[in-house]
Amino acid sequence: MTSADHAPHDTHDTHDTHDTHTFAEPAAIADDAPLAPGAALRFAIVGRDAATAARAGVLQTPHGVVRTPVFMPVGTHATVKAVGPDDLEALGASIVLSNTYHLLLRPGAELIARFGGLHGFMRWLHPILTDSGGFQVFSLGKLREVTDAAVSFRSHLDGSNLVMSPESVMQTEALLGADIILPLDECPPYPCSPEVAQAATARTHRWAERALAARVRDDQALFGIPQGSMDAALRAASARVIAALPFDGFSIGGLSVGEPKPLMWEMLEASVSGLPDAKPRHLLGVGSPDDLLEGIARGVDMFDCVLPTRTARTGGLYTPSGRVNIRTARFREEQGPVDVTCDCYTCRTFSAGYLHHLIRAEDDDSKGELLYYRLASIHNLRFLVRLVEGARVAILAGTFAAYRASFQAGFTPPNQEVAAEQRRRRATLG
Amino acid sequence: MTSADHAPHDTHDTHDTHDTHTFAEPAAIADDAPLAPGAALRFAIVGRDAATAARAGVLQTPHGVVRTPVFMPVGTHATVKAVGPDDLEALGASIVLSNTYHLLLRPGAELIARFGGLHGFMRWLHPILTDSGGFQVFSLGKLREVTDAAVSFRSHLDGSNLVMSPESVMQTEALLGADIILPLDECPPYPCSPEVAQAATARTHRWAERALAARVRDDQALFGIPQGSMDAALRAASARVIAALPFDGFSIGGLSVGEPKPLMWEMLEASVSGLPDAKPRHLLGVGSPDDLLEGIARGVDMFDCVLPTRTARTGGLYTPSGRVNIRTARFREEQGPVDVTCDCYTCRTFSAGYLHHLIRAEDDDSKGELLYYRLASIHNLRFLVRLVEGARVAILAGTFAAYRASFQAGFTPPNQEVAAEQRRRRATLG
Repeated sequence: MTSADHAPHDTHDTHDTHDTHTFAEPAAIADDAPLAPGAALRFAIVGRDAATAARAGVLQTPHGVVRTPVFMPVGTHATVKAVGPDDLEALGASIVLSNTYHLLLRPGAELIARFGGLHGFMRWLHPILTDSGGFQVFSLGKLREVTDAAVSFRSHLDGSNLVMSPESVMQTEALLGADIILPLDECPPYPCSPEVAQAATARTHRWAERALAARVRDDQALFGIPQGSMDAALRAASARVIAALPFDGFSIGGLSVGEPKPLMWEMLEASVSGLPDAKPRHLLGVGSPDDLLEGIARGVDMFDCVLPTRTARTGGLYTPSGRVNIRTARFREEQGPVDVTCDCYTCRTFSAGYLHHLIRAEDDDSKGELLYYRLASIHNLRFLVRLVEGARVAILAGTFAAYRASFQAGFTPPNQEVAAEQRRRRATLG
Repeated sequence: MTSADHAPHDTHDTHDTHDTHTFAEPAAIADDAPLAPGAALRFAIVGRDAATAARAGVLQTPHGVVRTPVFMPVGTHATVKAVGPDDLEALGASIVLSNTYHLLLRPGAELIARFGGLHGFMRWLHPILTDSGGFQVFSLGKLREVTDAAVSFRSHLDGSNLVMSPESVMQTEALLGADIILPLDECPPYPCSPEVAQAATARTHRWAERALAARVRDDQALFGIPQGSMDAALRAASARVIAALPFDGFSIGGLSVGEPKPLMWEMLEASVSGLPDAKPRHLLGVGSPDDLLEGIARGVDMFDCVLPTRTARTGGLYTPSGRVNIRTARFREEQGPVDVTCDCYTCRTFSAGYLHHLIRAEDDDSKGELLYYRLASIHNLRFLVRLVEGARVAILAGTFAAYRASFQAGFTPPNQEVAAEQRRRRATLG
């Protein structure tokens, strides 16, 4: 593509929110009326795919409407790394996830509460979901001691001693003030013995009941977390146990922890089999572009993952044909955008060659120009948000299976990139 | 100030360009008509301060109008560190400076030319000024050898051998395509012997004539650089020599290189004494908030400095009372903005406590959250842009002396901060 194809844009209008809802919404669900005072959530399924378990929904929260399926950018330290709330709005994010464990350590939930909760602190005035810290305390906490009463651990930042119990996590999340909160759970490692899987799952169930009993605010929706490790029967049973409790929705835990993809999908199906149809389903920590469509096909409504922003920071940018490494020499002279089909601020405004220059511009003061991190993160987030928006349109139009097949036919997943590159080289040489 | 005082803003409108020109412009200079084809510059002085040498002007370039006095953010690697062109527009920047030396080394001027020059490459569609690289080659180049013919040196990045001559710099800057370009000069070190000062100044004069003869494009304005080290007579003489040549304006070089402030102002006055009234004057590499007003009072129209963005990155943020360090504990609980009088996106949207959190949020992955660098840089740049906008309004209103006095009465310059803090503590204790 030539320079003329990538004409300059008037940057005054680049921060308008995308009008991503131009398809016809059934009248009954265009209702964005605020929730009744004290109500935390309303979820309606507004469309289903005939060929898969995919569904389209509308999720109402005290801070606004989320159309599902949805990808939620992750803002671990009360900031989605390198992007501002203005950028998040412009790229079409409707809800972000933040991490209770990290915020508990620093700056502390009481401080955030004094700033008006997470919404006031990070100035994201739209819906927020906080995880419970369960996953992080089992992956980051030092000198961890777990009993049924609580988990005690040392901060990975300063070594201070901390305790998290199902009850204290409810208190912490009430202070953080997210629209959707999760209960403390125990995520077993992968792989693990059947005994460890059983014990972690059973403890997660006991903690779920205690979290419900310790609920603080009626304007926060509480999602239950089914576990079950890599045992399909245990997963289905865990989902049924959690589903029998009065949760507002479900965040499926313990997947994407190192297991092979086919096993992950089998386990996801087992979890979903035990969950009610009418409540929203969130798949914790997934995923990559191809994973999102696979999850949607299995009935998942909500996704979160650090992958798009983390990948962006190392030079990995999504395109419809797969992830590219913007550091490589082939982008040095590229005058077109990273992704000609993308409508993000970065692709509408800058060439791939400029992004290549920014990430390679290193001096004593910096490793890569800071603007790179913002522009790259905006692109990868918009890529996932738009992919999932497209899935929703397709579900409502009855064309989801074709949408998924079309995307997957073009997209080479990252772990297959090297093999594909070798195939291309052989083809060129041969 | 309380949380309620810092009400949430609708972030949809935060990227509107500030309307900073609400004062009455004399009719004759509201003329923003484009320049004739091939014309590079039109400069008109539209107001003067009675008590000082300050003046207000309108500078027209092929990429738009710059109202002077003006502060120009510095984009060394074709990016103002941590901020995008959208941010620059929103904070009221009207022209940016970029560094020929750095761009020559990487990614190279030919490459930038293929992307439509600096404007197309960095997608800043407004005026740009490029320095000549003279200052950097004398401060950064390794194994430097200077003759009248050229300066040869090794790249500080990869050790490759490079040569810059007055003629090659004109070629390079023509490829970069800025609206205003500078000729190669020799900036003597501080301190230096009279012989070194004389020789560098004389060579700068010879190179100036060669740059004019080697001019490539008639749509680029070429500013001359008077030198003269710290010798008032040499400075005045150098200014007269350069002023006698057909330059479109002047960039006063060799100041802010380590000399005491009173000496700098004395030298600036000597340079200005030799320059014609009718052409624009740029003071290279200055400065801090108080320096800008001092420079304006001495008849300077244009300023550039890396200080606001570099200072921001280390935690130093400007306020009307001086620079504060946002890392300090006193900002941890601060729910008001960094500067209650500031109209930048950062201050309109975020608390000082949130910025404190962002710069202190460190983990294995990062040293400070990346969003901090953008928000802090936006604030410091807006602070300087607005300070200079205010000076222009005051010049046109005949109140510049009072404006300068009022600002300086409140603002403690950075090098006096420690002393002032000690005075405050003594006052508190006493």
